[in-house]
Amino acid sequence: MVKHNLNITKLQSSYLFPEVTKRKNNFLEKNPQAKLISLSIGDTTEPIPSPITTAMHDAALRLASKEGYEGYGPEQGLLELRQKITQQYYPKHINSDDMFINDGAKCDIGRLQMFFGQDVKVAMQDPAYPVYVDGSVLAGQTGDFCQTKEAYNDLTLLACTPKNNFFPHLSKLSNVDLIYFCSPHNPTGAVASKKQLEELVDYARKNRSIIIYDSAYAFYIQDSDLPKSIYEIEGADEVAIEVGSFSKLAGFTGVRLGWSIIPSKLKFEDGLSVKKLWIRFLSTVFNGASNIAQYGGLACMGPEGQSEIQKIIQFYLENARILKKAIDQKFQTFGNINAPYIWTYMGDQSSWDYFNLLLEKAHLVTVPGSGFGSNGEGFIRFSSFGSRENILKAAERLQQL
Amino acid sequence: MVKHNLNITKLQSSYLFPEVTKRKNNFLEKNPQAKLISLSIGDTTEPIPSPITTAMHDAALRLASKEGYEGYGPEQGLLELRQKITQQYYPKHINSDDMFINDGAKCDIGRLQMFFGQDVKVAMQDPAYPVYVDGSVLAGQTGDFCQTKEAYNDLTLLACTPKNNFFPHLSKLSNVDLIYFCSPHNPTGAVASKKQLEELVDYARKNRSIIIYDSAYAFYIQDSDLPKSIYEIEGADEVAIEVGSFSKLAGFTGVRLGWSIIPSKLKFEDGLSVKKLWIRFLSTVFNGASNIAQYGGLACMGPEGQSEIQKIIQFYLENARILKKAIDQKFQTFGNINAPYIWTYMGDQSSWDYFNLLLEKAHLVTVPGSGFGSNGEGFIRFSSFGSRENILKAAERLQQL
Repeated sequence: MVKHNLNITKLQSSYLFPEVTKRKNNFLEKNPQAKLISLSIGDTTEPIPSPITTAMHDAALRLASKEGYEGYGPEQGLLELRQKITQQYYPKHINSDDMFINDGAKCDIGRLQMFFGQDVKVAMQDPAYPVYVDGSVLAGQTGDFCQTKEAYNDLTLLACTPKNNFFPHLSKLSNVDLIYFCSPHNPTGAVASKKQLEELVDYARKNRSIIIYDSAYAFYIQDSDLPKSIYEIEGADEVAIEVGSFSKLAGFTGVRLGWSIIPSKLKFEDGLSVKKLWIRFLSTVFNGASNIAQYGGLACMGPEGQSEIQKIIQFYLENARILKKAIDQKFQTFGNINAPYIWTYMGDQSSWDYFNLLLEKAHLVTVPGSGFGSNGEGFIRFSSFGSRENILKAAERLQQL
Repeated sequence: MVKHNLNITKLQSSYLFPEVTKRKNNFLEKNPQAKLISLSIGDTTEPIPSPITTAMHDAALRLASKEGYEGYGPEQGLLELRQKITQQYYPKHINSDDMFINDGAKCDIGRLQMFFGQDVKVAMQDPAYPVYVDGSVLAGQTGDFCQTKEAYNDLTLLACTPKNNFFPHLSKLSNVDLIYFCSPHNPTGAVASKKQLEELVDYARKNRSIIIYDSAYAFYIQDSDLPKSIYEIEGADEVAIEVGSFSKLAGFTGVRLGWSIIPSKLKFEDGLSVKKLWIRFLSTVFNGASNIAQYGGLACMGPEGQSEIQKIIQFYLENARILKKAIDQKFQTFGNINAPYIWTYMGDQSSWDYFNLLLEKAHLVTVPGSGFGSNGEGFIRFSSFGSRENILKAAERLQQL
């Protein structure tokens, strides 16, 4: 009989967001009249601007004609899309040959975890996007869960708390192979400065580690002196993979599109090219992102698309300011607003208690900070994705709490 | 420094289809005037019928409106799509709860390989779709490549040759955990009979193995007494996963859509539900297929969509008949036509020699049988995807060879 993959049952709980949904649904069953507002999973709510949907609509229609039909696309993604993203976001630092179009950052992070395999030591921010931990466990890169220390063995968690201004103490970090680093940081909203990223790249160069840099929220950065890409740091192309996404950039959460950059200079211990092995791996387990989504991505990179998606980002940031103002009257929030999340310290009870309180008393669905790691205990993540009407209502409910 | 995942460098050669493309491009560089015809990678060429592209076009437009916008979809796929596929293709045997929508069969096969992990013993048809072998190697399910026997250690290859009428001798098979089985079989085009599938299911039930049944070409089956799904066999839902695809069904090779069925009855050795662990795995590494593609899939399941895609399947099958007739005059082909491929024994030289011969003398790009496994040596796989004009030209060139 088939034994199950032991890495899966190492996982301690269900994936965070389905658990949030389950609790929400249980509440709704008992209180069917409740008008819940979701400030929870970072799900975009604004329509996709029409220059972009028109491009997808045209792409779908082309598939119906003999001249316009396309079968399998290039595995690495449409050349024009790779070139346009590179020109738009990495004009000085990256070659389009090193760019890989994917069906969303989460999916490529999963593939990267399987790609690196079980013999790597992993470090990550704590709190962090739960996929980093869960995927590392599934890839066999961690030991069992230790109940005493409430963490997985052989997994290095880099505390990001108000005490260190949400940037980890790298000087104490022993040798690790992979370091996940997200900036703007989900869930805390903290953005690493140029100096901090230099420190990170410096660590990776000295220790020959590889950074997996998650820039899914880069376009929310408003301070012009804050880096939007790890490649703004000299030497980062020798040590860093960057994963980007159209989800929060252009509302493509359901359309599914993103990219990964695997620079040619990145090498394994034995001198083998990371990119070359990645291509071999990818061609076996992936067949490219949907062509229709890719043509939508292309429209995002044009002047009209860029201008339209900037408006939506500004809309969500204004939502965040409204929420922050309301929350600040009762609780402690952190960071300037360079991300669509408001990281809030609620008090010394558990995050799930506060989650339940907000659900029951204010009919707000949030995300418990502890779901992102033990350093998130006592915190709540408020998301600012939502209609203005709902955000204003939510702000009112928070003030009345 | 980061060690590379040793499973990747176990792989002996580049993935088959990029290698074919490389040789084609090299030839074109030296012979830029050559008018090559591709009978190679199974890439669809007929446009997608307009009821289906219209549904995708409408879905793209809805995303531009406040009322129609959708963010993250259900991870398992649109409920209506799961229900419609189930009603259409598995009305008696499968519950839509057990169906998972994916971004193409290849991608889910890759995820299944990672899901089962390294501690399973694997068997598969030989020849076979190269993703079964390569993905098993990447998942650490095989030993090293043994140069003497020209195969991976700890991987069971089930010879499918003219001698056994392309159905393996299961009586000699020692205990294995996973069995890949593809019917209609890529590359030989052989379709397993009900009796043969009963034998396969019987083996799996006795040995508590799990079958990964690839039905990507099921809709090409013309003989009404041949099973189109493994679930037509009693008890298969206790031992089989089935992976289906819209690629060859509706020309979705570039649009990316497929499905997997993980029946609730499927259990691991310790009694854990395969489906339950799969959901936990999937929610960490995947975020659903593109919503636009899913609405296209939904249109494929309607009466108009079904009628249109049947026409295209008949078109490709007529192509196959034209090619087979031409090839039969010179070489030995196998099987009735229930698949878009013609498996041809060329002689006692190597498949790559015949590949080169067909490329140089007839300007035809094919796939060398040996690329599918050592039992494909001496064979060529001709694909029947192409315009009628090209297929007629290719047939003429084959006759003149």
